[in-house]
Amino acid sequence: MLYLFTDFGWQGPYVGQMKSKVSEQVRYCQPIDLMHDVPAFNVKAGSYLLAAVSRYLPPDCVVAAIVDPQVGSDQRALVLRADYRWFVGPDNGLFDVVAQHASSCHWYEITFRPAHVSRSFHGRDIFIPVAGKLLLEESCDSFLSPISCPEPRFNDADLNEIIYIDQFGNLMTGLRASEVDGLVSIHFAGQLLSRATTFSDVDTGTAFFYENSQGLIEIAVNCGNAQAHFSATIGDSIALVF
Amino acid sequence: MLYLFTDFGWQGPYVGQMKSKVSEQVRYCQPIDLMHDVPAFNVKAGSYLLAAVSRYLPPDCVVAAIVDPQVGSDQRALVLRADYRWFVGPDNGLFDVVAQHASSCHWYEITFRPAHVSRSFHGRDIFIPVAGKLLLEESCDSFLSPISCPEPRFNDADLNEIIYIDQFGNLMTGLRASEVDGLVSIHFAGQLLSRATTFSDVDTGTAFFYENSQGLIEIAVNCGNAQAHFSATIGDSIALVF
Amino acid sequence: MLYLFTDFGWQGPYVGQMKSKVSEQVRYCQPIDLMHDVPAFNVKAGSYLLAAVSRYLPPDCVVAAIVDPQVGSDQRALVLRADYRWFVGPDNGLFDVVAQHASSCHWYEITFRPAHVSRSFHGRDIFIPVAGKLLLEESCDSFLSPISCPEPRFNDADLNEIIYIDQFGNLMTGLRASEVDGLVSIHFAGQLLSRATTFSDVDTGTAFFYENSQGLIEIAVNCGNAQAHFSATIGDSIALVF
Repeated sequence: MLYLFTDFGWQGPYVGQMKSKVSEQVRYCQPIDLMHDVPAFNVKAGSYLLAAVSRYLPPDCVVAAIVDPQVGSDQRALVLRADYRWFVGPDNGLFDVVAQHASSCHWYEITFRPAHVSRSFHGRDIFIPVAGKLLLEESCDSFLSPISCPEPRFNDADLNEIIYIDQFGNLMTGLRASEVDGLVSIHFAGQLLSRATTFSDVDTGTAFFYENSQGLIEIAVNCGNAQAHFSATIGDSIALVF
Repeated sequence: MLYLFTDFGWQGPYVGQMKSKVSEQVRYCQPIDLMHDVPAFNVKAGSYLLAAVSRYLPPDCVVAAIVDPQVGSDQRALVLRADYRWFVGPDNGLFDVVAQHASSCHWYEITFRPAHVSRSFHGRDIFIPVAGKLLLEESCDSFLSPISCPEPRFNDADLNEIIYIDQFGNLMTGLRASEVDGLVSIHFAGQLLSRATTFSDVDTGTAFFYENSQGLIEIAVNCGNAQAHFSATIGDSIALVF
Repeated sequence: MLYLFTDFGWQGPYVGQMKSKVSEQVRYCQPIDLMHDVPAFNVKAGSYLLAAVSRYLPPDCVVAAIVDPQVGSDQRALVLRADYRWFVGPDNGLFDVVAQHASSCHWYEITFRPAHVSRSFHGRDIFIPVAGKLLLEESCDSFLSPISCPEPRFNDADLNEIIYIDQFGNLMTGLRASEVDGLVSIHFAGQLLSRATTFSDVDTGTAFFYENSQGLIEIAVNCGNAQAHFSATIGDSIALVF
């Protein structure tokens, strides 16, 4: 199974052309759109999001993950095998958090180059063909070269920042709930927020935090919009109160 | 075939994670996104929309329908078999209109609970696994328990209100054209509108109503935007003039 | 393989109902969404876009292409076989540019009409069933009638205009880079822009043009938004400087 994780949005022919490419290579393969609204060009937020949303994907899946402000530059193209999953994408730190959470990692540089490669769409021209080869379980030697673990851009602690804001204004952080079992309050935007299990546990209009469906700490307002309530943006910090 | 009908939007990992779950369970199953922009949290509009858009779905299909302002609460999880189609979702009235239009109905409470269930994402953790079991034609006894028909939240008449506004500003109502054959005019927002067959039947800028492609009465403005023209919102009433 | 190319957007049940229809007809067929944000009702922009984004599609694919301000009117429904690809859609010029770029063309009028056809959704009721028949390689005689090439609405030169603006504000033109090899500058919105290979070749905030991933000339601003920078809209002209 192939998953797509990008900041491309649903606009334009980009996602469709990637799907076309893979379906030509792997008959009947229909990629699953994991998300296409990763905060644009934001590799840091993307790295924590990717680790969270890929945590429950099936073994042997392939994730084409593309968030890349340096598109067209000469950075390396990578493959990471983290435990039993494959990740294909740019060498810019996007896979750092996945790797830090994995029991075992193998890193590769992509040596494959097609006859024609667009300078601005490595997703279609390099990453997807390589994802297809992995799905077909081709021998890796012909298109991958083993490398040592790249220097991590992001450290191995969870991230006390907003990494994603959903359409309802809920504020997802890069902090795994499983790592902060005893956490009862957080400071955010000058306010002290309490923990709840779910929305209906607090009064209408009350801000709180809880473990969201991705296993992350998330700030919300019952029947309200936390983004508007706090004028929050991606990257805002939270402080933990144990 | 599995259909998804939600108010989740296309943002975030939510739709992708539901698709991932079902593809693990039912090989090669690729759900069809019927719509993900049901008016948010609006069960009433959703109930009439669901009945309209599911009317021509093939027999034996499964529809996972999730519009749920009470997510995380303790309401029942239901399955409805209406004629030859399955509907899986919350017990909040979302299936009422489908049931009222069906010749025969069988209702079930979902007894299945996975080992881990998120408080805020029953779509992924309960409804989709149950939809998968129905697609696989597993014996229902192990995960469904027959119940009597829930008390309807919405009455069995069509709804003289706006239930959906499309991206061009057309105003869809909850009124089936087949039920109002002789209808020649409607009152809406202080204006009297005439019936036409299609856009090109009326002058540019003229508001009218017609039978839309879902079989519902819809208000539109030729080469214009009816939502802006009338400052209309979901829930606005129309009055019929025979 | 079936591709969808429309101005429907992702809202509402429209794309989902087209997919449902084709999956009933052609088992396991999952159409690929090439794009659903063709500039609304803009057949001219759509015609140049369709030619660009379909250029690398596999032989024998079928493209259902629907951009149609005259929906519900009595214009003909067409099929074009351009080289080895099929195009299904309205007779309004949408296929003109594809045809002009093809080595060989065969044109057909669609004679198929279903028992029930909505006046406002020929995509679901006529074009998709015909696309399904082509995918199944049914004998065409029963639903297509050969016609001579329609009078072109758009001439056979490339288009020196903006035809699409992506979510990052990049301005795609209807001009193939392969046709203007020696082009070094363009005039746009009162400014003279130079050619670059990719974003990182120019300073932050600098506007430039380059060959995009569709093989078209595109105007962009490094780390900026060209649409906002130039107050640009679809249809704006550019002038070539050799």
